[in-house]
Amino acid sequence: MTDQRARRGSIIAIAEQRQNLASLDSSIIDRLPAYSAALFEAKTQKRLTFEAIAEHLGRSEVAVAALFYGQARASPEDVAKLHQLLGLSPESNLASQMTGFPDRGRAGPMPPVEPLIYRLYEIVQNYGYAFKAVMNEKFGDGIMSAICFNSKVEKEVDETGAAWVVITLKGKWLPFTRF
Amino acid sequence: MTDQRARRGSIIAIAEQRQNLASLDSSIIDRLPAYSAALFEAKTQKRLTFEAIAEHLGRSEVAVAALFYGQARASPEDVAKLHQLLGLSPESNLASQMTGFPDRGRAGPMPPVEPLIYRLYEIVQNYGYAFKAVMNEKFGDGIMSAICFNSKVEKEVDETGAAWVVITLKGKWLPFTRF
Amino acid sequence: MTDQRARRGSIIAIAEQRQNLASLDSSIIDRLPAYSAALFEAKTQKRLTFEAIAEHLGRSEVAVAALFYGQARASPEDVAKLHQLLGLSPESNLASQMTGFPDRGRAGPMPPVEPLIYRLYEIVQNYGYAFKAVMNEKFGDGIMSAICFNSKVEKEVDETGAAWVVITLKGKWLPFTRF
Amino acid sequence: MTDQRARRGSIIAIAEQRQNLASLDSSIIDRLPAYSAALFEAKTQKRLTFEAIAEHLGRSEVAVAALFYGQARASPEDVAKLHQLLGLSPESNLASQMTGFPDRGRAGPMPPVEPLIYRLYEIVQNYGYAFKAVMNEKFGDGIMSAICFNSKVEKEVDETGAAWVVITLKGKWLPFTRF
Amino acid sequence: MTDQRARRGSIIAIAEQRQNLASLDSSIIDRLPAYSAALFEAKTQKRLTFEAIAEHLGRSEVAVAALFYGQARASPEDVAKLHQLLGLSPESNLASQMTGFPDRGRAGPMPPVEPLIYRLYEIVQNYGYAFKAVMNEKFGDGIMSAICFNSKVEKEVDETGAAWVVITLKGKWLPFTRF
Amino acid sequence: MTDQRARRGSIIAIAEQRQNLASLDSSIIDRLPAYSAALFEAKTQKRLTFEAIAEHLGRSEVAVAALFYGQARASPEDVAKLHQLLGLSPESNLASQMTGFPDRGRAGPMPPVEPLIYRLYEIVQNYGYAFKAVMNEKFGDGIMSAICFNSKVEKEVDETGAAWVVITLKGKWLPFTRF
Amino acid sequence: MTDQRARRGSIIAIAEQRQNLASLDSSIIDRLPAYSAALFEAKTQKRLTFEAIAEHLGRSEVAVAALFYGQARASPEDVAKLHQLLGLSPESNLASQMTGFPDRGRAGPMPPVEPLIYRLYEIVQNYGYAFKAVMNEKFGDGIMSAICFNSKVEKEVDETGAAWVVITLKGKWLPFTRF
Amino acid sequence: MTDQRARRGSIIAIAEQRQNLASLDSSIIDRLPAYSAALFEAKTQKRLTFEAIAEHLGRSEVAVAALFYGQARASPEDVAKLHQLLGLSPESNLASQMTGFPDRGRAGPMPPVEPLIYRLYEIVQNYGYAFKAVMNEKFGDGIMSAICFNSKVEKEVDETGAAWVVITLKGKWLPFTRF
Amino acid sequence: MTDQRARRGSIIAIAEQRQNLASLDSSIIDRLPAYSAALFEAKTQKRLTFEAIAEHLGRSEVAVAALFYGQARASPEDVAKLHQLLGLSPESNLASQMTGFPDRGRAGPMPPVEPLIYRLYEIVQNYGYAFKAVMNEKFGDGIMSAICFNSKVEKEVDETGAAWVVITLKGKWLPFTRF
Amino acid sequence: MTDQRARRGSIIAIAEQRQNLASLDSSIIDRLPAYSAALFEAKTQKRLTFEAIAEHLGRSEVAVAALFYGQARASPEDVAKLHQLLGLSPESNLASQMTGFPDRGRAGPMPPVEPLIYRLYEIVQNYGYAFKAVMNEKFGDGIMSAICFNSKVEKEVDETGAAWVVITLKGKWLPFTRF
Repeated sequence: MTDQRARRGSIIAIAEQRQNLASLDSSIIDRLPAYSAALFEAKTQKRLTFEAIAEHLGRSEVAVAALFYGQARASPEDVAKLHQLLGLSPESNLASQMTGFPDRGRAGPMPPVEPLIYRLYEIVQNYGYAFKAVMNEKFGDGIMSAICFNSKVEKEVDETGAAWVVITLKGKWLPFTRF
Repeated sequence: MTDQRARRGSIIAIAEQRQNLASLDSSIIDRLPAYSAALFEAKTQKRLTFEAIAEHLGRSEVAVAALFYGQARASPEDVAKLHQLLGLSPESNLASQMTGFPDRGRAGPMPPVEPLIYRLYEIVQNYGYAFKAVMNEKFGDGIMSAICFNSKVEKEVDETGAAWVVITLKGKWLPFTRF
Repeated sequence: MTDQRARRGSIIAIAEQRQNLASLDSSIIDRLPAYSAALFEAKTQKRLTFEAIAEHLGRSEVAVAALFYGQARASPEDVAKLHQLLGLSPESNLASQMTGFPDRGRAGPMPPVEPLIYRLYEIVQNYGYAFKAVMNEKFGDGIMSAICFNSKVEKEVDETGAAWVVITLKGKWLPFTRF
Repeated sequence: MTDQRARRGSIIAIAEQRQNLASLDSSIIDRLPAYSAALFEAKTQKRLTFEAIAEHLGRSEVAVAALFYGQARASPEDVAKLHQLLGLSPESNLASQMTGFPDRGRAGPMPPVEPLIYRLYEIVQNYGYAFKAVMNEKFGDGIMSAICFNSKVEKEVDETGAAWVVITLKGKWLPFTRF
Repeated sequence: MTDQRARRGSIIAIAEQRQNLASLDSSIIDRLPAYSAALFEAKTQKRLTFEAIAEHLGRSEVAVAALFYGQARASPEDVAKLHQLLGLSPESNLASQMTGFPDRGRAGPMPPVEPLIYRLYEIVQNYGYAFKAVMNEKFGDGIMSAICFNSKVEKEVDETGAAWVVITLKGKWLPFTRF
Repeated sequence: MTDQRARRGSIIAIAEQRQNLASLDSSIIDRLPAYSAALFEAKTQKRLTFEAIAEHLGRSEVAVAALFYGQARASPEDVAKLHQLLGLSPESNLASQMTGFPDRGRAGPMPPVEPLIYRLYEIVQNYGYAFKAVMNEKFGDGIMSAICFNSKVEKEVDETGAAWVVITLKGKWLPFTRF
Repeated sequence: MTDQRARRGSIIAIAEQRQNLASLDSSIIDRLPAYSAALFEAKTQKRLTFEAIAEHLGRSEVAVAALFYGQARASPEDVAKLHQLLGLSPESNLASQMTGFPDRGRAGPMPPVEPLIYRLYEIVQNYGYAFKAVMNEKFGDGIMSAICFNSKVEKEVDETGAAWVVITLKGKWLPFTRF
Repeated sequence: MTDQRARRGSIIAIAEQRQNLASLDSSIIDRLPAYSAALFEAKTQKRLTFEAIAEHLGRSEVAVAALFYGQARASPEDVAKLHQLLGLSPESNLASQMTGFPDRGRAGPMPPVEPLIYRLYEIVQNYGYAFKAVMNEKFGDGIMSAICFNSKVEKEVDETGAAWVVITLKGKWLPFTRF
Repeated sequence: MTDQRARRGSIIAIAEQRQNLASLDSSIIDRLPAYSAALFEAKTQKRLTFEAIAEHLGRSEVAVAALFYGQARASPEDVAKLHQLLGLSPESNLASQMTGFPDRGRAGPMPPVEPLIYRLYEIVQNYGYAFKAVMNEKFGDGIMSAICFNSKVEKEVDETGAAWVVITLKGKWLPFTRF
Repeated sequence: MTDQRARRGSIIAIAEQRQNLASLDSSIIDRLPAYSAALFEAKTQKRLTFEAIAEHLGRSEVAVAALFYGQARASPEDVAKLHQLLGLSPESNLASQMTGFPDRGRAGPMPPVEPLIYRLYEIVQNYGYAFKAVMNEKFGDGIMSAICFNSKVEKEVDETGAAWVVITLKGKWLPFTRF
């Protein structure tokens, strides 16, 4: 086997191992807290999916991904488990950073320019009033909380073999206070 | 019983009957197609919830509310059933309007100023990248369709008696074409 | 006494009676629900302050003013009492309108251009992070609800005779759900 | 006890000590004056809450947090006490920086994307005209000053054990000059 | 056959006849020249597709649709043929309006909120630089004209029976003048 | 030959070799992923057009340019071939970066300020509704996918010798789901 | 004298009488309170300058113009004098409108598009920090009030006969409260 | 005297010396030309007010502050005097920078977020049309120049001891050319 | 000759007569002063070009078109001549409207969406700094006035028969005042 | 002669030599391609005006200034002549950068904040529709190209000695294609 082909093979091998592992686009780093880059780098090195990490932490995949993007707060146990799983140096100050109160909402521009995220935005744009009308009839005057809230993403395959994404958004109903 | 109290009683009666019936805020009418106002007025008169209408049409509540807000297209059967249920005049040109191709997306401003709709927007803002990362790992490079898509809103009551909203967003997975 | 002076006197009289009665600037009407104009007109005719109306309804002044601006929902009792107090015709359809679910947040532009409202906006702009930091330390990771919320405005006069406005914002603390 | 568990324990210990200590999200540093980072770092090291610092300075918690975010000016006494309390080097030029005139208002984007700060913005958006109407009736034509102003945040616990945030905004009333 | 079913049948009939006939969403009328509404109404009455009209005028479908939306100028022959085909009154002043110089570009908001139009916008957003790089290499320094330009939309069905849209954009290459 | 003229000649030579080779404007680098700069630099060094690279990769020119701008994902084979063709060091971590999931849509501002890209935007602005109307009549209620999508750029020369750009946009038709 | 010339003469006469009388551009009416149009119309009819009206009211020209544009509140005496001077019908409800609390700040767009108003905006844009620095040195940490404020416009003619505008802005100094 | 108190005393001393000396907020540096930071640093070191510098240069305080913020051009004499007064190294290239043509208008965001600058903006927002109307009546159709312009800031103390800011804006009147 | 063809012929005739006569797009009317519509209507009726009107008024075509769009002020002589030329009723109040002070700058949106106007905007966007640099070198520190300004549009035909537009912008140079 | 005066004299000398030489404001560098800074620095060192450089290159001043700001592409000959004239090192990679395809339109913000550039923008804002109307009448339906375009800036002095700027914009007329 020639050198050339060997090299090419090894590059493919590296690339394939990374298939379907979410990593951090380098152009977004400045908008995220410093620990995001460190976490994503370790995740890439260890070749861990969010599913695997979530299982280790006993949390939801969406919550763990949000934590990596600086949109959720880690508990001390989360930090300890992440150190262990990702092999982070105990001397790093990730622990103190990740248990701080996140400055949420700045990861990406709004309206979103990323096609996947835009589709979610479009759902709010097109169906926002429909959701409001249906919730008002089911619950009265109030809102669905985005704080007292959880979410999950699941995969379904229909009879034709096509894949469907199922996102569940679950938030506590908060009625407007009468005062 | 005095006149005064009688009058007051009848006003309360009217108002109570309307409790938890979504109607159309008059200041939003200009942004919606002309048939929206007609449909909402008939719905108010008939005291019908979206749940009731949806059952009659064999469609989802969210889809029916979207149709009322001009965000979905009615089939000829939908139109016929709505005429019947809402008691619309067959001479009205609602049929031709409602089966036109909707000019979607203009019902409300973005970012939303309505608190209930804002919470949905906030979920996209805070968890957008998390959803993307999790979907990319589960499905590869692509998006969840907002077109080949359906949605529902359900109510859950937890053990403490508190109400929770559960929104399900289900969209077909569309992988980016390699070209 | 001349006619001229008499006429002038009566105009002053009319104007003085209206001193410090909030009315509706005609250029804002289009952004509000139709019942806003009707309510404000009756309020002006009856020369009622929000304080007087609030007392009659057993609600807060701020809540009543918000209701007039289409930012809060009236209960059937509120509607009945408003009809009585403002002398509204029982045939008007105010009852059904006011007990609908408000489409909140569109009364004025943001950033506000009204100097009084801008000052409140400026407080959020300048002290927003300070409020966040203090709340995070006092309560943990979460938000103060603007839904499960009430507010009041009070007047204080200091030792120099100068008037101070005291606004109290009281909202339930909602911790972020761990999921 | 194994090494592994010991390490995990110490990370949890570090993290727990930081529970509910507001720190500075690293992605916001560029928008703040240089001394902000220095002050927050020292605060984290010394494990001081804003409550503790405020008590030492004889100032309000909100004011002290605002000072850390570059939104308020420190007096020479404030600077001296902060040096002492935070153990800052007297050679640092924090003194000269902190007593400069702050370039206020640039800490975060408006509309806010941080959920906690957004709720305050939403209160202005929804209740702005209500506050204006009530103040106009109570005080006449003018504004509540955001300069000749103070604020505090308090915690209340209701009979069900639920925590409530109480924010008090107190500003001098400034009537429009007649000219 | 009962009356009820007869009525329902006729409504379905009307609606079906209109299937896949583009009409004008009533909420967009104000942004278009006055003749747009007249043209679309006649088109709906006559049940004509843009394909049929284009054939009659000897023009492209896209151009004819653009003309209906006030984005292209009609020649006197176009006007005469449209009068004939759509049965417009010769007394109407459509002729003078349609041969005026259009005030282009105001039909819809940008970024588009309509999902179909947004997808075209997204193509520009994602592939804009790619198009530029490829054109620069193929043609040098310049632009593709959007004025000396034509376009068509075609339908293709692939081997699986799935439909594909093929849009062709053809514009003259304009090199930057050296001066 | 003098030194002066020799130097001038060699500069012209260098510059001419680069004629019509798309390179990366240095002021745009920050908005792109880190590998963009590396790829463009190698492309410039090797004097390769996108046409040549596309042929080597067996992909479309537009797709390859999009990949260079961080708007498309590379397969492991793409990465291997690019390494070989561009002579990239196998030790670089380009492989892992390029096979990540791109954070699309941030390469340039919208509305575009680049004249070439603006013309494409203007086509959407002026003809957006025309495209929608024609597609709706040809396909029904739905959208042309920008994900299940491909595109090419071709050159045509007309009888007068003038060059025309022909862009083909081909996307799968996605009908709105009825639910 | 022919008819033609007579007519032309009378039109010139009408127009000349109106030279340098500020009137209301009809396209701005919707953004102003209803009484603005009535006041301006009467002012035009009576051919009164703001200088003349200001003298009659004992107020500043700028304040009176602001009052006409709905940016200031009239006292009962102002209203009475305006009725008398402008010959307004005592039955009109201008009195009650003009003594309401103005909804300030919406007369024109910001940034201003009117060249005269833009120049004032540009002064703030270019010299804003210079004004801040000079005021901070002269007064300490605070602001110049725009509420406890008055202004005047004067004309000066220099030695070359050129006219200069002199605007005086005078506002109370408000120091930031220490809290 | 203890060390502690001595250190605290000296910090107070440093801070007090800087009272009411405008300096440069470090977070604004990137928006200003490079010489701004150098000038402000020297000004701080030498403890010079703008009043003192202006006197030395024979210019207005506002102009000198504008020059420090990169909003005005220095003459060669200004540069020489500044070198002398501020003790700048003659080797620095400040001379060539400061006599360049400023790129004005980018010092701060518009609308301003700094409360002091916002008040000036608010004056334009509220009184813009009033200024226009008064100027039009006094001068005809034209504008007050912001180029052929000067300005000063003065302090007045009223009978109650309260301080007032008096800003004078003086610009040449430019009538619109008739063509 | 059949009726059909006769009718078609007359429509073409009407349309051709209007070829290259600028008229007013009906969707822009609301943004312009009321007299704009009246003037354009009369211009269309009389089939007058701006060139013809300009000659009659002894003014520039651009100035006359600007006057029709409410962007310039008419002199009494202009008004008299326009009445005569356009056959306007002397009873109309156009005279008083047109000699008012225009509220300039609101005819169209910025950035422009009209392709012709966008090209002018693009010239400012691309060459703005080049114009500034060249003017600064030719004239010093200042601006070209847009008030003391005139403009003309001319047609040139080159040797190949191609038409070129030549716009001349001529404005007085205004140096920044030293103060 | 004292040292002091000598030093001051030499600084004035340096500054005067730079009078009316356009240089690059350091705060704008990030928005321009890397070669801009290098070119401007060499221009400043050599004390060359754009007029001198343009003469050497046989191009227009405006084009050369645009090239310095990264808004135009250099030919190999331009690059060679610039190297010679500006004394640039042949080893620099300016040649390859400057002959790349510029990423136009990002030099400054729009709306412009620079007063000189704003005046040009204001001309488009105020006279845009007038230019369109006049061009449509002179040329038909189309646009003036900003690509097939050139421009020059000239100085005129009127009889009073006042300087006027004359900008000529010349673009090819492009009629809309009929399709």
